[in-house]
Amino acid sequence: MLTTDASDLRDLIELVGPKAVRTDKEATPFMTDWRGRHRGNALAAILPATTDEASRVVTFCRDRGITIYPQGGNTGLCAGGVPPEEERRCIVLSAGRMRRIRELDAVGDVAVVEAGVTLSALHDAVLSEERLFPLRLGSEGTAQIGGLISTNAGGTGAVRYGVMRDLVLGLEVVMPDGNVLRRLSGLRKDNRGYDWKHLFIGGEGSLGFVTAAALKLFPAVRDEAHAACVVESPEAAVALFGRLRKRFDTAIHAFELVSGGEVALALKHVPGLRAPFDPLPEWILMIELGNSDPDGRLSERLTGFLERSLSDGMILDAVIPATVQQAADLWAVRHSLSEANKKEGHGVVFDIAVRVSRVPEFIAGATALIEQLMPIAEPLYVCHLGDGNVHVIAMIPHGALPDRVSLDNSVARLQEAIHDLSESIGGSFSAEHGIGRKLAPELARRLPPTEWNTMRQIKRALDPMDLFAPGVLMQASPDDE
Amino acid sequence: MLTTDASDLRDLIELVGPKAVRTDKEATPFMTDWRGRHRGNALAAILPATTDEASRVVTFCRDRGITIYPQGGNTGLCAGGVPPEEERRCIVLSAGRMRRIRELDAVGDVAVVEAGVTLSALHDAVLSEERLFPLRLGSEGTAQIGGLISTNAGGTGAVRYGVMRDLVLGLEVVMPDGNVLRRLSGLRKDNRGYDWKHLFIGGEGSLGFVTAAALKLFPAVRDEAHAACVVESPEAAVALFGRLRKRFDTAIHAFELVSGGEVALALKHVPGLRAPFDPLPEWILMIELGNSDPDGRLSERLTGFLERSLSDGMILDAVIPATVQQAADLWAVRHSLSEANKKEGHGVVFDIAVRVSRVPEFIAGATALIEQLMPIAEPLYVCHLGDGNVHVIAMIPHGALPDRVSLDNSVARLQEAIHDLSESIGGSFSAEHGIGRKLAPELARRLPPTEWNTMRQIKRALDPMDLFAPGVLMQASPDDE
Repeated sequence: MLTTDASDLRDLIELVGPKAVRTDKEATPFMTDWRGRHRGNALAAILPATTDEASRVVTFCRDRGITIYPQGGNTGLCAGGVPPEEERRCIVLSAGRMRRIRELDAVGDVAVVEAGVTLSALHDAVLSEERLFPLRLGSEGTAQIGGLISTNAGGTGAVRYGVMRDLVLGLEVVMPDGNVLRRLSGLRKDNRGYDWKHLFIGGEGSLGFVTAAALKLFPAVRDEAHAACVVESPEAAVALFGRLRKRFDTAIHAFELVSGGEVALALKHVPGLRAPFDPLPEWILMIELGNSDPDGRLSERLTGFLERSLSDGMILDAVIPATVQQAADLWAVRHSLSEANKKEGHGVVFDIAVRVSRVPEFIAGATALIEQLMPIAEPLYVCHLGDGNVHVIAMIPHGALPDRVSLDNSVARLQEAIHDLSESIGGSFSAEHGIGRKLAPELARRLPPTEWNTMRQIKRALDPMDLFAPGVLMQASPDDE
Repeated sequence: MLTTDASDLRDLIELVGPKAVRTDKEATPFMTDWRGRHRGNALAAILPATTDEASRVVTFCRDRGITIYPQGGNTGLCAGGVPPEEERRCIVLSAGRMRRIRELDAVGDVAVVEAGVTLSALHDAVLSEERLFPLRLGSEGTAQIGGLISTNAGGTGAVRYGVMRDLVLGLEVVMPDGNVLRRLSGLRKDNRGYDWKHLFIGGEGSLGFVTAAALKLFPAVRDEAHAACVVESPEAAVALFGRLRKRFDTAIHAFELVSGGEVALALKHVPGLRAPFDPLPEWILMIELGNSDPDGRLSERLTGFLERSLSDGMILDAVIPATVQQAADLWAVRHSLSEANKKEGHGVVFDIAVRVSRVPEFIAGATALIEQLMPIAEPLYVCHLGDGNVHVIAMIPHGALPDRVSLDNSVARLQEAIHDLSESIGGSFSAEHGIGRKLAPELARRLPPTEWNTMRQIKRALDPMDLFAPGVLMQASPDDE
């Protein structure tokens, strides 16, 4: 059907009402990514209020040949939730007005929520029922459930509760043909056919538009313990994790290894923070324990555990916050690192996963590569160590930034080397941040041909017209079979 | 390519060697299902020794138009692992000779195992590293990893560790085109593209042949506590679960609600068992707690918990085994129920899942339906209550069995009613046993059209020639779009 942009917009407004359509200045926040590095273009941002409306928008776009870019809270780190920078006949399809919590079953431990519900709104809602939805992210005031599902978000709690994929019991999705795929029963066991939800979880919006989800709930945490430790090396940190796991198992709610240099940047740039150790050591471990049993005596047991680890030298020092405020101060340091990095300079970030057993090897290799390929950068690390997830930050201070071309060249060389290193250790070059546009070329190059072909077959089967998010996750390739 | 059965067999023997080919009497065990109710036919059972051999077999079959029925330990309950009863040009493809444990990483908590490894062989192997692979089934001496993955097996430990789907980190699969799809890195986080493994988990062999898997390992259990309780009703059992969950959370390793009538059958038919209570009550709860911390004082804490629940009437009686032997005796009763049912008569079994909150409602409804539609049967229940999984057994004693036609008619009517009831409560008619051939008609009828179409689209994309297990999971339908 030949139509003009103007008539398409007019018809969209008629279809879903003016409240659902954002154009021009109102559309700007939907067009630019979280990091401000990608500025996209689209006819409009469309915000349906219901699944039925979303279905009608998708059908409309399918009929008119208008591409769809699904978007949640737009807090993604790989420019996957925004439309292309080049001119394109497309819309942003946002879940932002679908904010209902449809059901809270505290006995069945299930919440059925719409895709536009923010993570912190969900946290608040379940707390009143003494339940917990355990995904935690810095961006939780803005990040939406649909986006968190589509990107399979991670976070510090994954060591205990897994990633988003492990927390979804069912989905409701508007498919590229406009039909609604729905299984929101929220059952812990269900062997009726293919578990298709897992294609949309981490599918980055390329197969359909997530409109609602059934999510797992857990008992509220009623006892906590925290500690910061000095360890000599990543090897010592891995050894401590093994020992801690044996004693505390699922009571470990966070196990974070960070460079002393990262903490130094936080103290330098973010006001109101306190150094856990002075002088700052090279490696700091931050541990959080939690339990639904208020009488679990976690602080006492953690203290005893750390005393033993101190006396046999597995750790070199430890601080255990004595009050709730001190614990909050400790974690405030951890949660200030991104902000500190932005203020210090240009941080080249890699989001790598390897086996826990191979983290020390990877860190040593990455440090050597940065020294070799980007000597002006300081190698810094922030690791969700319990998951084998290492964030490498090659930090270039503002004053030392080279010209754009030189920077881009060394970043490309460093990325190549870091990704090769992770591959050689059996790791992943995208542990939790996903692919988006940023890493789509890497995925196309590095995924083995059989995996790539399987992805293309699935995409072609469910979205034969490439209606959803072309260019995100999968680069278009003329060589595709 | 036009070939005869004889020449195909000859060529297969030449391709993979005589050790890999079973025909005639040697093939019989592969042709009949676990329950002895389905007797299939095939050219041969083929047992490749390596992934490469498996790939060559699949390519051979694809080229010759020979259908493939993948099979693991052949312990499935829905006749999904055996070839058709009617004559058909097909083979059974068995993982039985692929029994290597390729890797055991006790620090990274990953085991990479081939599909023919039995569950108990894996249990033994990881125990030597003080690890645990927590899936537990009665058939574990025979059930194989590949089959457990393809059927997404459950078990009593799901309340703590989830089902097989939750324990798989990666797969190696021979696809219908003969190519090998492989991601065995065994990472806890990996956001590189679609999570295709979940199509094969629970895919019942309809999309490819699983040859290896990377599986999650856990700390060994070093403290346990057990109890049997008398509860007045399923409602009381659900309430107790909520209270127990708050106090013990992930220390709950099993929470089973069984009819006193089931325990009576076990005592009647299986020698050496002891009644936990005398007289037997209507409802018995069996609880198992576990922890990797040997100093967790689980028995003491469970005792205190049950004393409190006794004094406020949430439970009516409790027994806590005082020795390891007594605990084993208690669970021997639970694990003898299937055998007892077989000896007592004909048990019509339904494997239903509902929300935990709705289990009492379902049990009441199912009891009424059995009384109405099959009054000669005794309604008995064995529930993995923590997952909302209710096994309904309408038990017809041997002496009371009607003629075959009448039996089939009332079974069909009862199934219809039980499945309708589960659907009306938002449940699943196949919690853990899967679909196979037994429930393929139900899946085709009851799955919403959008879900059915999505399944068909995925099947057509990955197995366009319908090479793998036609008739299993999905009934062929002329109405398919």
